[in-house]
Amino acid sequence: MPEFLRLVSPAEALARWLKALPESRRGEVESQDTPGSLGRILAEDVVAPHPLPPFARSTVDGYAVRAEDTFGAGPSAPSYLRLVGEVPMGRISDIQIHVGEAALVHTGGAIPEGASAVVMLEDTQTVPGGEIEVLSALGIGKNVIRLGEDIQEGERVLEIGQRLRVQEIGGLMALGRTRVSVFRRPRVAILSTGDEVVPAEAEPQPGQVRDVNSHTLAALVLRSGGQPVPFGIVPDDPETLFQAAQRAKASSDLIIITAGSSASARDNTAEVVRRLGAPGVLVHGLSIKPGKPAILGMVDGVPVIGLPGNPVSALVVAGLLVTPMLRRLGGDNRPTITAAVPARLAVNVPSEAGREDYLPARLEGSPEGWIADPVFGKSNLIFTLVRADGLIRIPADTTGLPEGSRVDVIPFD
Amino acid sequence: MPEFLRLVSPAEALARWLKALPESRRGEVESQDTPGSLGRILAEDVVAPHPLPPFARSTVDGYAVRAEDTFGAGPSAPSYLRLVGEVPMGRISDIQIHVGEAALVHTGGAIPEGASAVVMLEDTQTVPGGEIEVLSALGIGKNVIRLGEDIQEGERVLEIGQRLRVQEIGGLMALGRTRVSVFRRPRVAILSTGDEVVPAEAEPQPGQVRDVNSHTLAALVLRSGGQPVPFGIVPDDPETLFQAAQRAKASSDLIIITAGSSASARDNTAEVVRRLGAPGVLVHGLSIKPGKPAILGMVDGVPVIGLPGNPVSALVVAGLLVTPMLRRLGGDNRPTITAAVPARLAVNVPSEAGREDYLPARLEGSPEGWIADPVFGKSNLIFTLVRADGLIRIPADTTGLPEGSRVDVIPFD
Repeated sequence: MPEFLRLVSPAEALARWLKALPESRRGEVESQDTPGSLGRILAEDVVAPHPLPPFARSTVDGYAVRAEDTFGAGPSAPSYLRLVGEVPMGRISDIQIHVGEAALVHTGGAIPEGASAVVMLEDTQTVPGGEIEVLSALGIGKNVIRLGEDIQEGERVLEIGQRLRVQEIGGLMALGRTRVSVFRRPRVAILSTGDEVVPAEAEPQPGQVRDVNSHTLAALVLRSGGQPVPFGIVPDDPETLFQAAQRAKASSDLIIITAGSSASARDNTAEVVRRLGAPGVLVHGLSIKPGKPAILGMVDGVPVIGLPGNPVSALVVAGLLVTPMLRRLGGDNRPTITAAVPARLAVNVPSEAGREDYLPARLEGSPEGWIADPVFGKSNLIFTLVRADGLIRIPADTTGLPEGSRVDVIPFD
Repeated sequence: MPEFLRLVSPAEALARWLKALPESRRGEVESQDTPGSLGRILAEDVVAPHPLPPFARSTVDGYAVRAEDTFGAGPSAPSYLRLVGEVPMGRISDIQIHVGEAALVHTGGAIPEGASAVVMLEDTQTVPGGEIEVLSALGIGKNVIRLGEDIQEGERVLEIGQRLRVQEIGGLMALGRTRVSVFRRPRVAILSTGDEVVPAEAEPQPGQVRDVNSHTLAALVLRSGGQPVPFGIVPDDPETLFQAAQRAKASSDLIIITAGSSASARDNTAEVVRRLGAPGVLVHGLSIKPGKPAILGMVDGVPVIGLPGNPVSALVVAGLLVTPMLRRLGGDNRPTITAAVPARLAVNVPSEAGREDYLPARLEGSPEGWIADPVFGKSNLIFTLVRADGLIRIPADTTGLPEGSRVDVIPFD
């Protein structure tokens, strides 16, 4: 008799799974050149070794002046200032601006001593005799970036657990940090089970199918910052699966087992998770479609997930649970921000209350914005997802959505 | 006297730039193992060499039956069927289902000849004497995935120009396509200019700053599917810049020149673009903030972009223009779907009509959803973006948005 599932919502399941992770867990650290660390998680706090910018700079092409020398100036009453030189780029000049003086300065050039503002070229006229007319009054600091305006010396500019995006790479390079400590990517063991499953490289015999889930899950793990470690295809035999999972446990930060979604295969996976370590199975069954028969476990500090064998179910559940777990295992401590595409439903969509539905959908442009057209496929085969641009989430408190409803489509990467 | 800019909207600028690209342009093709081609653009049409699934399969654990043998069956009036065997996994069995017969079948198992539906275990009872009771009536095809239900043999399943996402990798592997033709990544030459700019590895002398834009743009190019080729830092000298740009033109699919945003530097870049080839400068000046002084050109079929030197401007303009151009150069022919995070503005934001504004913002959670808190920084230095989660777009027809307005935040990758 198959075990009855006690269904848990995906959010509650994730919370239990994360909570069971040992507090003391700390990822290994590796040194990486900064440009190569795009997308990695910082494993150190970064303190600015010097201010940015390291000197006061002009933001425009113009003349460095004492702001008070321009007070009251206007188009009909210009201030006349004596031009005393040009600030070279890339050097601190020895020009000093005294009362009534100005020096030509280019964008990015250092503000010379004595100057407190820069008047734009467009607001000046040159007059014979080495003088300029200033046609507008300037406040102190006008068109000047102050020393340390972006970052002060000693300021903590980046923190452990930050993901290094394009701008963090730039910020690190601006500070001369050409190498950086990042957390090692979590290693994710992927075990595919099923007596009918053969490697993608093989020619399936009648009754056999090629392994899809190992490859889609490896790709998803890569996208989520993990390092997939393929453990191949394991026959539907509890002892063989247990042996393989034990090897995976010894060398991995997370174990994914994709099972056939049959009750017997599920029971195999659950039994293996129980034998692998404590506390074992945490969740067996999600109130979600597709993906109901998923299993979450923790075995001596290593998270395990048993995913249904159907590829859409496996990917939907992995996106909801494996991705955030990988983020945590990888040391990423920032909240998740999920972007979506607002759209209108092309058709009525039935659903059951008490269950979250995730529906693959195609986005079609229209003059009124995006239309989300669900890709129905009773058997949720892989090409259902190939035809889709993203997933529509139908919340658990809904019994379906009528045509024309406003939905958020979470686009596939 | 600096050249006057004739401002063009970013959308119009992009349209002109893409239109100037030669039609005949066709990217080089390379062969790649399928799992390693995640994110690449397919350079061939893929036709299914066989149907998927390759045989009719059960979607449940149950008994394969002739549907008509269950007509009229119910909990109080079961059909009695004779159990004639168990379908092995991974093989086509020689079991045949005749009138009044049933065979045990597991999820994913092949439907035996003669059977037209599968009754779930839960809807049956075993009775002594090798019979089962079927407690529900089944339609033809119930709990069966038909042969070819996902994909028919000979069907074109993927097309030239499709980006290979997680699911396309899975689909290819399901069909045994372990290698695939993809377009070579576009090579993007990145030239940084400025007499005050030194490499990030160097210790800047007073008046000098480290190169940031080469690194942020290289990261953005990588993220957008291109292959950055650093051309280093070029002094503010038109002839030297021309020589470097000519070398870049010979070996690249796209040239990025980041200039100081000074009028003189801009004029240098424009002049170099004119000299490099025909038709030369297409757009000089965008109705956008930040990023107004950008330059777009096409030189003998190679697109060139001159970006302002300030890192925020450079990244905003590159995101709007370089990313879609790279997609085109890389052979990606799908429409762009931009996902955003709906939020409410934390403060009033002024803007000018006739100009699109892009404002870095931090997202803060609240019980009512996300709050977008703009990161103001008059000088748009790199750490402005480090502090931000995404960009708020303020359309050109707005003169500002009041606190509490609903805005879409485009999150940074």
